[in-house]
Amino acid sequence: MEEKRVVIIGGGFVGLNCANILGNAGGLRVTVLDRRNHHLFQPLLYQVAMAGLTPANIAAPIRALLADYANVQTLQAVVTGIDLEARKVLTSAGEHPYDYLVVGAGAKHSYFGNEHWEEFAPGLKTLSQATEIRNRVLQAFEDAETCTDRDRRRQLLTFVVVGGGPTGVELAGALGEMTRFTLTRQFRNIDSRQTRIILVEGGPRILANFTPEHSAKATRVLEQLGVQVWTNASVTNVDAQGVVMGNESIKAATVLWAAGVRASSLGAKMGVELDRAGRVVVQPDLTVPGHPEVFVGGDMAHVEMSDGRLVPGMAPGALQMGRYIGKIILKEMAGAPRKPFQYWDKGQMATIGRTQAVLESGRLRMSGVLAWFAWVVIHIYYLVSLRNRVFVLFSWLWSWLKFARGSRLIIKKEWRFWGPGGEVR
Amino acid sequence: MEEKRVVIIGGGFVGLNCANILGNAGGLRVTVLDRRNHHLFQPLLYQVAMAGLTPANIAAPIRALLADYANVQTLQAVVTGIDLEARKVLTSAGEHPYDYLVVGAGAKHSYFGNEHWEEFAPGLKTLSQATEIRNRVLQAFEDAETCTDRDRRRQLLTFVVVGGGPTGVELAGALGEMTRFTLTRQFRNIDSRQTRIILVEGGPRILANFTPEHSAKATRVLEQLGVQVWTNASVTNVDAQGVVMGNESIKAATVLWAAGVRASSLGAKMGVELDRAGRVVVQPDLTVPGHPEVFVGGDMAHVEMSDGRLVPGMAPGALQMGRYIGKIILKEMAGAPRKPFQYWDKGQMATIGRTQAVLESGRLRMSGVLAWFAWVVIHIYYLVSLRNRVFVLFSWLWSWLKFARGSRLIIKKEWRFWGPGGEVR
Repeated sequence: MEEKRVVIIGGGFVGLNCANILGNAGGLRVTVLDRRNHHLFQPLLYQVAMAGLTPANIAAPIRALLADYANVQTLQAVVTGIDLEARKVLTSAGEHPYDYLVVGAGAKHSYFGNEHWEEFAPGLKTLSQATEIRNRVLQAFEDAETCTDRDRRRQLLTFVVVGGGPTGVELAGALGEMTRFTLTRQFRNIDSRQTRIILVEGGPRILANFTPEHSAKATRVLEQLGVQVWTNASVTNVDAQGVVMGNESIKAATVLWAAGVRASSLGAKMGVELDRAGRVVVQPDLTVPGHPEVFVGGDMAHVEMSDGRLVPGMAPGALQMGRYIGKIILKEMAGAPRKPFQYWDKGQMATIGRTQAVLESGRLRMSGVLAWFAWVVIHIYYLVSLRNRVFVLFSWLWSWLKFARGSRLIIKKEWRFWGPGGEVR
Repeated sequence: MEEKRVVIIGGGFVGLNCANILGNAGGLRVTVLDRRNHHLFQPLLYQVAMAGLTPANIAAPIRALLADYANVQTLQAVVTGIDLEARKVLTSAGEHPYDYLVVGAGAKHSYFGNEHWEEFAPGLKTLSQATEIRNRVLQAFEDAETCTDRDRRRQLLTFVVVGGGPTGVELAGALGEMTRFTLTRQFRNIDSRQTRIILVEGGPRILANFTPEHSAKATRVLEQLGVQVWTNASVTNVDAQGVVMGNESIKAATVLWAAGVRASSLGAKMGVELDRAGRVVVQPDLTVPGHPEVFVGGDMAHVEMSDGRLVPGMAPGALQMGRYIGKIILKEMAGAPRKPFQYWDKGQMATIGRTQAVLESGRLRMSGVLAWFAWVVIHIYYLVSLRNRVFVLFSWLWSWLKFARGSRLIIKKEWRFWGPGGEVR
């Protein structure tokens, strides 16, 4: 029997979990393509942006994670196109023909047609963005400490987080915690507790996917941390001065964007049906219509549950899809028919500050310290690699006891030339 | 009594240790100025460049380290000039008059008039440079894995380290270790053990400040790790193709510069006598001639020992000078006369690979595993902050047991716009 070639695009939860199923399986040769060299645990990315964890805590090289599978090759390459008819992937590192294709390239943040806002309001999807946000937040306090102009200082000490979903809530909560605990006593000219943090949400309540009770609870906890929650506030402009919402405006030196995501543009390159968020509308077995050999999973896939709602773009869904696709391929090689993908809804949660979280799973509704503890356990459990689990747990314990943040570093390019490709870090 | 104003330039070993002495002392107001927000433990910077430690392991915010001293203020600012006559420091954050000035702005790497080489051969003095080197080294292996051209692949798998001092030896040793242990089995198209690592030294032997026996020992250990040691080889050009030494040349995609340092240009701005390396020639009490209120310490100071040799530009010297200056100021306020600075030479050491080091202290000569263990203990001891000590020790233990490196991340700017000031990380 000839070897089947599986090409996996993306080393995120879909790709990694699929490769883990296919690794060391007979008769298969697997190639994992990713433009970056690392898998990233996105649920904790906000903690890197808020100087609590370091990049290495929540990321690991894809090739290290897959090193034990002799039939799996990892290549760092940018995918430039997918030729569904010729069954090959075009990349910066040549063409890769496939018998099965698994596409899990994720999502990026989106400004809904106002992409020029990115300069002033970075989003949070990559380690590069997280360290940029960390630089900006920490630099704002440093600049406020040396600033002699009263208005400018106020602007420097005003932070706006746009978007009241879990990421926005977690960012605003971490900012509140940082300014109310970590940074107090460290400055002489400013009082970090006077920092204004404004969480702007376009809809009527934050955490809209949670119960109204949990939205209210989250709002109360945020307000205790000094965060002002502005709902029904639609952002109409962002620039170097701050944020405009219709006829209101906030002068803020630092604006963070957590308002929307859009699926990877790879879906558009495939020439298949997309939904409004750029996701590929897939069949019950996660394949592209007419192409049973092409799977799409994770944030890139538009997958309906039995009640008509979409599988949410969170880690558990991507993880389950990756495993499902891997098993489908293995079973099909053994001649078994395909069963449709079933999403096991484990619920959702969001954490706010030191000891608070809200958690909803099936009929279970939890908030407070117990929910926070569950949040910690679950996030440690889902982290990739034992090393990351141990180091994150240890970092959290230390920071929690000391009210500290372990990675308050501003690191900027400080030399004359650019690195290869004009890129630096 | 009126308060005396002490301005400290630089939050390195000099500034930090001086501030620790002056902190909470009566009658003194201390301002620490640094262009960066963090103190950096430079002796371990090569481990960040080689993906063994993360930036947060060896750095800490200066203001956090000094937070407990109510009379000490930390300001992030760039010093633009020093007016010795008017007794004030000019900075990006205004003017700072002083009664005592402490200058410890350190050194940067130097290309001896060929500063355009920096683009192709980055040096190692800041966290930004360390993460850039990490990016380049890891990217070279990734590119080699996808490269189909034989010559280019060979070039990608050739690394040149210029300079056979402790930093060059430690970089080359870490590269050898990484390619011979960590990266094996992780690639499919290349064999990382075939990587060429060439350590280029202009003089007749590496580690020229150590005994010839230790130079020879270090050379043997490096060769066992696959490092070729080229002595008496003076670099005449560096470009995108590699390194040229007279009529010889090496095609190398990655060149690292560890060949020379030059004191901060702040010395030149003071208009005082400098030595050839840009260091300020100071009096026995570390002051500038004619200005008993202006101290210079650390890598910026040209200080002769009783045997005529210079105090070497290493952490212990800077640390001792910082403490000395702090004590001189305190004593003088109590009316005591100044005693000259006495350097306590604790010796020197360099580590090579997993378990080897050379150590010389007074008449003590040590090499091998015991020296390596001493190296570990001493570096943990001198790290700033308990958190860093614990986390570095823990990282080392883990990496040592697993032959792993904890921070193998390539993180590059991935968005369209630059951050404030055109800088990103």
